[in-house]
Amino acid sequence: MIDSSSALCKPIKPNPELELHVEPRLTVSIIPFQVRNGVFCVGTIVVGASEHVLPSRSPDTREPLDAAAEQLMVESTGHPPAYLEQLYTLSIEQREPWRIIVSYIALVSPDSHRPNEELVWREPADLQLRRDTDRMLLDYALVRLRAKLGYTNIAFHLLPRTFTLTDLQVVYERVLDQELDKRNFRRRLSASGIVTRTGVLRRDGKHRPAELYRFTSDSDQSTFLTPPWARMETPS
Amino acid sequence: MIDSSSALCKPIKPNPELELHVEPRLTVSIIPFQVRNGVFCVGTIVVGASEHVLPSRSPDTREPLDAAAEQLMVESTGHPPAYLEQLYTLSIEQREPWRIIVSYIALVSPDSHRPNEELVWREPADLQLRRDTDRMLLDYALVRLRAKLGYTNIAFHLLPRTFTLTDLQVVYERVLDQELDKRNFRRRLSASGIVTRTGVLRRDGKHRPAELYRFTSDSDQSTFLTPPWARMETPS
Repeated sequence: MIDSSSALCKPIKPNPELELHVEPRLTVSIIPFQVRNGVFCVGTIVVGASEHVLPSRSPDTREPLDAAAEQLMVESTGHPPAYLEQLYTLSIEQREPWRIIVSYIALVSPDSHRPNEELVWREPADLQLRRDTDRMLLDYALVRLRAKLGYTNIAFHLLPRTFTLTDLQVVYERVLDQELDKRNFRRRLSASGIVTRTGVLRRDGKHRPAELYRFTSDSDQSTFLTPPWARMETPS
Repeated sequence: MIDSSSALCKPIKPNPELELHVEPRLTVSIIPFQVRNGVFCVGTIVVGASEHVLPSRSPDTREPLDAAAEQLMVESTGHPPAYLEQLYTLSIEQREPWRIIVSYIALVSPDSHRPNEELVWREPADLQLRRDTDRMLLDYALVRLRAKLGYTNIAFHLLPRTFTLTDLQVVYERVLDQELDKRNFRRRLSASGIVTRTGVLRRDGKHRPAELYRFTSDSDQSTFLTPPWARMETPS
């Protein structure tokens, strides 16, 4: 048997690279969004009495970042996200140790609830976040998501497979946090060609039956922010 | 004096975090673009006989990533880029040590040449890149840049302060690597409102004098991919 105490006494060669650069700690953080009962929510973990933090973890050694982000969502919600996009990587120099946070937006389908999931879901504005960094990431995630509504079909990841045009407008209004003119909204939508009629009607209470729509395609510009070599399979 | 050999023999407390997570080496890489004499080019560093690598460096300890990227451009070209945008962060698990690359697109103004700059400028397709990772990053930077031409004024960072509509169309065509219909291009441009006439004419050789245009504004959607708290001053 090797005596471990004497093994520790072997001369240690200085590593010049380690001396030049103290490497930062690497963390992956997620900003999960979901429309729940018509309310646009962000998912967080509760700490202490009423403070919240974004789900985060250090990747395992040599674990790909996108895989770490997806795994984090599986652990937090019970299933992979409908859509995952790298948001931004930032350096937190003030914390000890120095920290690099790679952040992701995760969109969760509206019909995927798990009773025992780790996350609590709140409206973004209502949230008391413990860390300033988490607030910066959440605010920027909202900026990115709102901007993408204008030129991609990203909102559909927040909707069920089929939906009425009213459902769709509600999601847009909730994410943008502003009311939209129904006539304008429908005209633009029709011009964009991103939705297709299913021919199926749905009756909601006493209202006139509304037609259900679906994605025309799921391969669109919305994915260009994720490089082809990093793109993961979307659960079907 | 402390005997360093015996100091090394002090019992070493195991650090559970270090055992769980071997931290990756952090690198910042840049994909610099510039239009040079009407040709859309990427800037690289020559290694060996004819191979190229993207400019890259390890940030100093606690150096912000965006500052490291800007500094890298200053060192490579002699001045900060006209536009800098974080592209993607990826993990290279196959290399030793494990490596995290935070990549940036940098756009360089067409009138900024420095005779002794470190970079060589080539058309993207002609380039023989030593590392597969650099090719992935370059290809994805082109995808992102081309997509952004459609909904932002990002191309203007590749143009001088004033320019003719033909200058502008040439930049679009070079970046997109396809010819555009002049009439359609001008109609869309006019509708977008992103350029403003200066009233000044420029005569090129024997052609009819062409009016010079400028940006209507530099505060537009093109910057939304950089969070407000990370945005740097653009050199005026």
